[in-house]
Amino acid sequence: MNTWMRLMAPDGGIVFGRVENGYLHEYAGLDQLVPTGAVLPLRTLSPLAPCAPGKVVALWNNFHALAAKLEKPVPTHPLFLLKPAGSVIGSDTPILRPAHYAGKIAFEGELGIVIGKRCSNVSEEEAQSSIFGYTIVNDVTAAGLLTENPHFPQWCRAKGFDTFCCIGPAIVSGFDWRSARVVTRLDGGERQNYPLDDMVFTPAQQVSLISQDLTLEAGDVIACGTSLGVGSIGAGATVEIAIEGIGTLSNILATERAEGVPDTAAQSAA
Amino acid sequence: MNTWMRLMAPDGGIVFGRVENGYLHEYAGLDQLVPTGAVLPLRTLSPLAPCAPGKVVALWNNFHALAAKLEKPVPTHPLFLLKPAGSVIGSDTPILRPAHYAGKIAFEGELGIVIGKRCSNVSEEEAQSSIFGYTIVNDVTAAGLLTENPHFPQWCRAKGFDTFCCIGPAIVSGFDWRSARVVTRLDGGERQNYPLDDMVFTPAQQVSLISQDLTLEAGDVIACGTSLGVGSIGAGATVEIAIEGIGTLSNILATERAEGVPDTAAQSAA
Repeated sequence: MNTWMRLMAPDGGIVFGRVENGYLHEYAGLDQLVPTGAVLPLRTLSPLAPCAPGKVVALWNNFHALAAKLEKPVPTHPLFLLKPAGSVIGSDTPILRPAHYAGKIAFEGELGIVIGKRCSNVSEEEAQSSIFGYTIVNDVTAAGLLTENPHFPQWCRAKGFDTFCCIGPAIVSGFDWRSARVVTRLDGGERQNYPLDDMVFTPAQQVSLISQDLTLEAGDVIACGTSLGVGSIGAGATVEIAIEGIGTLSNILATERAEGVPDTAAQSAA
Repeated sequence: MNTWMRLMAPDGGIVFGRVENGYLHEYAGLDQLVPTGAVLPLRTLSPLAPCAPGKVVALWNNFHALAAKLEKPVPTHPLFLLKPAGSVIGSDTPILRPAHYAGKIAFEGELGIVIGKRCSNVSEEEAQSSIFGYTIVNDVTAAGLLTENPHFPQWCRAKGFDTFCCIGPAIVSGFDWRSARVVTRLDGGERQNYPLDDMVFTPAQQVSLISQDLTLEAGDVIACGTSLGVGSIGAGATVEIAIEGIGTLSNILATERAEGVPDTAAQSAA
């Protein structure tokens, strides 16, 4: 297993590489795994989301336990929506409530698949070798918007706001997701704790099947869907999502709104 | 009014600029309107989609006539999904049927808004000045997938396949959409002919309202939604969408599938 991060240097430059004993061993990119020779002390760098996806494919209803609770049949093909690149933030960066929205904002702790090379119509075997590694995703959702319009479920809007796709803190390659669990804590209290081997479509199946639909590019992320225990985040609360072997993704819901408006409505709504 | 195109030069380089009398006057980019000094004969260049959007925001139910036909109320906020960057092709490029899908593939002729600069939480006035120009979009849809799963309408999947977002042939700045009509022809027969002034949300309203949800970047495209007359494309048929003042976007549905499989199932299904 190797741990990979993307960080900002003091001069504003972005570096990517392998983390070892407090140092970043810089590489040209996740789709171009050539060491640059630079070895930088992590303490001088500011963490970013560990990749810069062009798109995030987010799955719905991909865990047997959640399907049973929702009383929905398990799907026969991954059911997904797209979250835009602009929704991505890293760990320790605040989630911002949209200025116009006072309703429930939900956390969803998820495993993230990071694509290592372009995939189009790939087999499950090719898909496996196209996965660069795994990360953690908080698939933040303005839950009140999903069904606001009874004629059109607003999946992309409710999940696509700026800052609504938290990814990090690192990507781990060679990670065995089968024995891992996703543990989500809200202000320290455990809210989700589910095993990844309850997934309906495995990561390799997801990459293969989704690649029959649209071309996946290096750095793209698939959020594998969540399971039981999703809940609401109050203003100022911190969501920590941990997967042993990857780390902990931590994000606070800001007490100010996206435009700097104090979030009083949110406090009463949450 | 100026007409802008993006084309490939014989050396594989991509050029963007203003078209006049058979020549391209090259500019640095649509978000950086500085002439490079190069003036290239168009006959030496191959047209591409006129911009390279990071995302395409596609509206549903944005015309009064269509809402009435569907017997749906007019929405109070733009209802949208996202089409990925990889779905974009230019004019005169074939639409490819996904290898696994034998159902109906529909055309939807639409006005496209091309964003000229980053927009986040912009007013309607700011939105207006953030619009670089207008283009034509064929919002191609694998109609049979939309409702294939009764628990999750697959908007992103049905409209997100590679080649399912035809954009072009050009962007026209200073274009007056209010007096224009969208005319769609299938193998020469008129199928859509609707006035753009029947739109529910005007382009400036769309940009302003959507920018409250997610940041729009230069080059992003908003497909304004379609109106009456949407229909199915058979294998080998050509869809031409014309907006007077912009031009004609023309795309054939290939007789082969995405992976080069002969499209026999499609011919019987269409």
